[in-house]
Amino acid sequence: MRIAVDAMGGDHAPQAIVEGILMAEKEFSDVEFLLYGDGAQIKPLLGEQYNQDKIKVIHTDEKITSDDEPVRAVRSKRNASMVLAARAVKNGEADALFSAGNTGALLASGLLVIGRIKGIDRPGLMPVLPVIGKENQQFVLMDVGANADSKAENIHQFGILGSYYAKFVLGINSPKVALLNNGSEEGKGSELSKKAYELLSEDDSLNYIGNIEARELFSGDADVIVTDGFTGNAVLKTIEGTALGLMKLMKNSIVNGGMKTKLGGLLVKDALSDVKDTMDYSKHGGAVLFGLRAPVIKTHGSADKTAVFHTIKQIRKILSSNVIEDLVNFFEEQNQTEKN
Amino acid sequence: MRIAVDAMGGDHAPQAIVEGILMAEKEFSDVEFLLYGDGAQIKPLLGEQYNQDKIKVIHTDEKITSDDEPVRAVRSKRNASMVLAARAVKNGEADALFSAGNTGALLASGLLVIGRIKGIDRPGLMPVLPVIGKENQQFVLMDVGANADSKAENIHQFGILGSYYAKFVLGINSPKVALLNNGSEEGKGSELSKKAYELLSEDDSLNYIGNIEARELFSGDADVIVTDGFTGNAVLKTIEGTALGLMKLMKNSIVNGGMKTKLGGLLVKDALSDVKDTMDYSKHGGAVLFGLRAPVIKTHGSADKTAVFHTIKQIRKILSSNVIEDLVNFFEEQNQTEKN
Repeated sequence: MRIAVDAMGGDHAPQAIVEGILMAEKEFSDVEFLLYGDGAQIKPLLGEQYNQDKIKVIHTDEKITSDDEPVRAVRSKRNASMVLAARAVKNGEADALFSAGNTGALLASGLLVIGRIKGIDRPGLMPVLPVIGKENQQFVLMDVGANADSKAENIHQFGILGSYYAKFVLGINSPKVALLNNGSEEGKGSELSKKAYELLSEDDSLNYIGNIEARELFSGDADVIVTDGFTGNAVLKTIEGTALGLMKLMKNSIVNGGMKTKLGGLLVKDALSDVKDTMDYSKHGGAVLFGLRAPVIKTHGSADKTAVFHTIKQIRKILSSNVIEDLVNFFEEQNQTEKN
Repeated sequence: MRIAVDAMGGDHAPQAIVEGILMAEKEFSDVEFLLYGDGAQIKPLLGEQYNQDKIKVIHTDEKITSDDEPVRAVRSKRNASMVLAARAVKNGEADALFSAGNTGALLASGLLVIGRIKGIDRPGLMPVLPVIGKENQQFVLMDVGANADSKAENIHQFGILGSYYAKFVLGINSPKVALLNNGSEEGKGSELSKKAYELLSEDDSLNYIGNIEARELFSGDADVIVTDGFTGNAVLKTIEGTALGLMKLMKNSIVNGGMKTKLGGLLVKDALSDVKDTMDYSKHGGAVLFGLRAPVIKTHGSADKTAVFHTIKQIRKILSSNVIEDLVNFFEEQNQTEKN
C-alpha cells in the first residue's frame, strides 16, 4: 500500500511529519510513502540512510497555509503539496491521503480532487475517541465539521459509514449506533434530530440503540455516535477546551499550592501525564474524512512525530480492512435495489 | 424579597433543599421563603427553632418526578409543589421561583404559569460558568436547552438577555457578546449561525465581538456566549461528561499507580478538590430560565445544601439588580419604537 503525504501541513511541518514517517517506515514493511513538499527541507530530515524504495520525495514549492481560504486555495494553488498528494490518490498512484494541515482545505481536496463514493451525499469528518474507564475501547463521532449544515439523510448515512468503520477497522462485531440528542427518550430533540431518529431506526442494517446525551459520550454505551456537522464540531471543540482547561486548572492548583501539594504534584506527575495521553485523541489516530473514494486522514495541526506515526498505523489498518471497497459495494447495491 | 421554593425537586429533596434554605435564611436577613411540598417531611428538617416569619411551609401531597413528561405533568398535576410555587410567583405572592427538579417541567411551569416578558419570543436557559485561569471571572452561555430549535431572531434575543444579565447581575460594564460558531472568522457557520451573526452585528446596543469556537469557551474572551438551544445543550453536557470523565481517569490513574503515585495522590487531594469545585457549576449558582416575567432558577438535580445556598444567593442578586424590570422596559420601548 502507498500513502500520499502532505509533508508541509501542520505547525511542526515538515520536521514532525518526516520524523513520524521514518518511524512508520521502520515499523511497517508493507507501506510506501510519497512525500510532497519542499525537497530542500525534507531531504536533510530524511538523512542519508533512508530507504529510497519505500520513501519518495516529490518536490514542490507551493503549500497551503492555515490562513488560506480552503476552496479557493485548493483551486488556485494547483501545485500545493496537499493538492498534489490528493491528485496522486485520484490517479491511483497512492491509496490514501494524509495531512496535518488546513482542515478545510483537506476537506476541499478530498471532495474536489478525490471525490465521493457514489451514493454518499455528504462525507463526514470522524475522529476516533477513547472510552473512559475501559482501556483500549474506542468510539467514533461523526460528523465533527465536514459540513456546516446536515440533513437527516446525511446523519443516517453517517450511521452507516461509522458502523462500517467500527466493524472493519475497530473490529467491533455489531457496532452500537446512537444519535446525539438533547434527551435519551424517543421523541426528544430538534426537528432535524427527530427526523434522523426515524431514518436510523428504520434501517435494519444498523444496530441502532436510540438517543445518547453528550454527558454519556465517553461511557462506551455507543460505538458510533452521529450528529449534524455543526453540533459535532461544537462537541469536539468543547471536549478539547474542557480537557485543556481542566489540565491547566490542575497545574495551577498544584503550582500555587503549599509545599505538601507541590511535592504531591511531583509524585503524581506520571499519572497525570497518562491521563493527558488518554484524552489526547491524536494518540488514537487522526480524524477520517469518510465517504470518499479513498481514505483521507487529518491529524491535529500540533501533531508531533508520535501522533504522525499513530495516524499512519491507523491508515494502514483502514487500507488492510478494505472498508472503502465494502462501502462502495454497499452503496452500489443499494442504488441497484432502488432502481429495480 | 420572597422566593417560592419547590422543596420536593431534586435527588436529595427535600433534605438538601431545606438545609440549604436554612443556611440562606441565616445569611440573608432580607429574604423570605415559601416552601412548597410535603409538610410531614419538611417540618422535621426545619426543626423547632426556625424563623417562622421568614420561612413558611405550604403543604401539598403532589409532586413532579424526573420521569414525568414535562408539559403534561404541569397541566395535570395542578397541585404539584413546583406548579404551586410557580403560581405563587404568577400571583405576586413571591418574586422568584427556585427548583432542583425536572428541568423540562420547570421550563413548562415558567412558560405556562409565569409567562414571558412581552416582546421575547423564546426564553432561554442560561448557566453561569467559570472562566479558567481568572479567578472570580464568569461567563454565561445561552440557550442550553430551553428550546430544541432556535431561530436567528431567538439567538439575537439571547444576546440581549445575556448582556443584561452580565451587566446587572455579574457587574460587567460592557459585556462582550460572542456567537458560538464552527470557526472564528466572519462568514463561517451554518445557515442559522450566519443569520444570527448578521442580526447580532447590526444591533448597536450590544458589544458584539463576533464568533467564538467552543475550544475558547473558558478563555474569558467573551462574557456572553449565545447559540441555539440544541447546540448549547450538547455543549453543556459535553463539558459535564468531559470533566467527570477526566476526574475519573485521574482517580483511576492514581489509585492504580505505585506507592509513589498513591502517596502523591494523598498530597494533592485538596488541590484536586479545588479543581472539582471550580468546574462544578452548581457552585456558581443555578441556570436561569431567562426572559420570563420573574426569575426562574434551576439548580442541578444532584445539588447539595451548599449548592442550594449558592443558588439562593444568586437569586437574591438577580432580584436586587432589578434586571427583569429593566428588560421589561427595554422590550416595551422597542415595541413602541416599532409601532411609531
